[in-house]
Amino acid sequence: MGIIVQKYGGTSVVDIDHIRNVAKRITKTYDQGNNVVVIISAMAGVTDELIDMAMQVTDSPEKRELDVLLATGEQTTAALLAMTLKAMNYPAMSLLGYQAEVHTDCAFGNARILDIGAGRIKDLVDERNIVVVAGFQGIDENGNITTLGRGGSDTTAVAIAASLKADICEIYTDVDGIYTADPNVCKKARKIVAISYDEMLNMASLGAKVLQIRSVGFAKKYNVPVHVRSAFTEEEGTMVVNEDSGMERLVVSAVTHDKNQARITLKKVPDQPGVAAKIFTPIAESGIVVDMIVQNTRAEGHTDLTFTVPKVSFEAALEIEGRVAEEIEAEDVLGDKNIAKVSVVGVGMKDHSGVAAKMFNILARENINIIMISTSEIRISCIIEEKYAELAVRVLHTAFGLDKEE
Amino acid sequence: MGIIVQKYGGTSVVDIDHIRNVAKRITKTYDQGNNVVVIISAMAGVTDELIDMAMQVTDSPEKRELDVLLATGEQTTAALLAMTLKAMNYPAMSLLGYQAEVHTDCAFGNARILDIGAGRIKDLVDERNIVVVAGFQGIDENGNITTLGRGGSDTTAVAIAASLKADICEIYTDVDGIYTADPNVCKKARKIVAISYDEMLNMASLGAKVLQIRSVGFAKKYNVPVHVRSAFTEEEGTMVVNEDSGMERLVVSAVTHDKNQARITLKKVPDQPGVAAKIFTPIAESGIVVDMIVQNTRAEGHTDLTFTVPKVSFEAALEIEGRVAEEIEAEDVLGDKNIAKVSVVGVGMKDHSGVAAKMFNILARENINIIMISTSEIRISCIIEEKYAELAVRVLHTAFGLDKEE
Repeated sequence: MGIIVQKYGGTSVVDIDHIRNVAKRITKTYDQGNNVVVIISAMAGVTDELIDMAMQVTDSPEKRELDVLLATGEQTTAALLAMTLKAMNYPAMSLLGYQAEVHTDCAFGNARILDIGAGRIKDLVDERNIVVVAGFQGIDENGNITTLGRGGSDTTAVAIAASLKADICEIYTDVDGIYTADPNVCKKARKIVAISYDEMLNMASLGAKVLQIRSVGFAKKYNVPVHVRSAFTEEEGTMVVNEDSGMERLVVSAVTHDKNQARITLKKVPDQPGVAAKIFTPIAESGIVVDMIVQNTRAEGHTDLTFTVPKVSFEAALEIEGRVAEEIEAEDVLGDKNIAKVSVVGVGMKDHSGVAAKMFNILARENINIIMISTSEIRISCIIEEKYAELAVRVLHTAFGLDKEE
Repeated sequence: MGIIVQKYGGTSVVDIDHIRNVAKRITKTYDQGNNVVVIISAMAGVTDELIDMAMQVTDSPEKRELDVLLATGEQTTAALLAMTLKAMNYPAMSLLGYQAEVHTDCAFGNARILDIGAGRIKDLVDERNIVVVAGFQGIDENGNITTLGRGGSDTTAVAIAASLKADICEIYTDVDGIYTADPNVCKKARKIVAISYDEMLNMASLGAKVLQIRSVGFAKKYNVPVHVRSAFTEEEGTMVVNEDSGMERLVVSAVTHDKNQARITLKKVPDQPGVAAKIFTPIAESGIVVDMIVQNTRAEGHTDLTFTVPKVSFEAALEIEGRVAEEIEAEDVLGDKNIAKVSVVGVGMKDHSGVAAKMFNILARENINIIMISTSEIRISCIIEEKYAELAVRVLHTAFGLDKEE
């Protein structure tokens, strides 16, 4: 008998009525003869409320205790959902992180799953129970509660699906799939039927925000087919699968954009070993996540170095680099918040040359200046002026043949 | 170095400001050189909110899942308190039921503590940590979360104090001690300096409501000195101790009353073996708690049988006994909600005759009719008409020499 893992996000369990709907969806799958394991998030908004509560105590709450606090969110919904299923006369049982043996490292607040000791889940499933696992939480080697970071329930779901060798991991969310571009920006965006893990990895980090990126890495490693779909309709969503799974191979699968970045440039940095470390160590120590880094060679033993950080970290990063610039005797520090990152993503790129050139040409035709460029095997990203972001997405979407048919 | 166990009730941790005050009290004790283990309740009102949530799902929520839900209440305050102590630069750590190894039976919703595997608490205490234990919750032999019933945190505290061989178990609550009578009813009631476990056992079940009765049994068994005191003042409260602890031995220590009972009488019950079982089995199966039972012999092979149940269970019990009466061919079923139980309690009674006679005389002098009588070694209880309850408490309080000096 097949095992289906279903993960429901916070907006799907926001109150008892929603939980009842989730229960109906689960029992429908169960009644079709499948074994079902459910991973559940906290009710939408609850995690933020708990963080607010902790912030009333102190600006920097102890991370171990914050995890103990946050774990109550998923515990609450897991209990309520199992209760709902029992009230519908289905055999159901909730398991918390430690009961489901979700073993993690001890990086409180951002722990990584090391392994799932799926003994108890497996036994319960074999007895035809619907197992409801509290997502987002695990336990470290000392028996402390850990949490997996924002979106961590996705990773719980994929990891449990992998350990159970489930047929599929369904991620129920408030969008109905993954699109070729943000439909709010590009009216001609199409829902993608199937996308590869690698493309998804590149899209998630670019702001697609549908799946926690770590869960996609897990899915790729253990080859777990993931189906991202809406909790509110019966429509098929997007399959995230191995790229050999006979999916349509477009050169470019999607155009993404991210307006949440800001740019910082250090001018005339002495071109010596150790300088880059001096620039980025204090940034990392402040917990600021750097996205793109570009360094241009320049004359006379100096170089310019540019990188991007999230807009919210811009002022802090600028202040840090002001001090660094003095220390390393760079000429100046400049910053710009009015930028956006536009990317084209596609596994087909690996076999096609000229995608980058085509992208630059399309942008040039619209008089959009490219400020920075960064590429991976299956992605090309350009930093442009923020005001051109939507225009760039639309023209690239059309030029790479992604527009839906009218 | 001595170990002090402190338990804080829901009204002491109702918000972050209150939690901060609790933290100050804890650190004061710690700074005096004591090792401190804290047992914490859910914020006042939270447990009821969680029950309401479950009742939105179904009228009779699965007990295992209800316990998973309810356990979040104490988990939240334990995390917040440990966080507060850490923010004050004290070494602190929260432990949940399973982490503190509070092993219970598997009676969900009303589990009994079997033992405390205090290894981890002891290690943490030895390293001078302030350990904050989530009260009210434990874990059964299968790793399921259990809860200990209303007031269960008291029992957690006493059980942990016993296992650690603590010097004292302080119960911080919203009253400043145990009184010789309810001060709202009897203005002359005095705070009791010291009271024996046995007296407390008799008082708790009679509605003194300051300590969960099970915790007192635990304290007696392991001889744990318990100090019941206010979380809001520095005043000494009431010590609950072994009766040999040199406490003042009054004949009567307190007068209690309970207006939450209702009476049910089955008239002309056939006086045959097995009849009592037929009367009380369906009541027990409905989860209704019977308090007093009185049976009077009557002529011609029949007897009258009277018992009391909580007022909220009155209608249900009456309906059940209507059916039973038909089955066992009793003549009639009568009920009365307008009753009260008034009791005098005191270990001194064991050595003094005439306490019962004195009590009946005092009530008779006020023309208070006694409906039922029940006695234990150190307690005499009378059921009287509800309207006389306050008067009875006052006259008994005076007559047994309990009034405070003016």
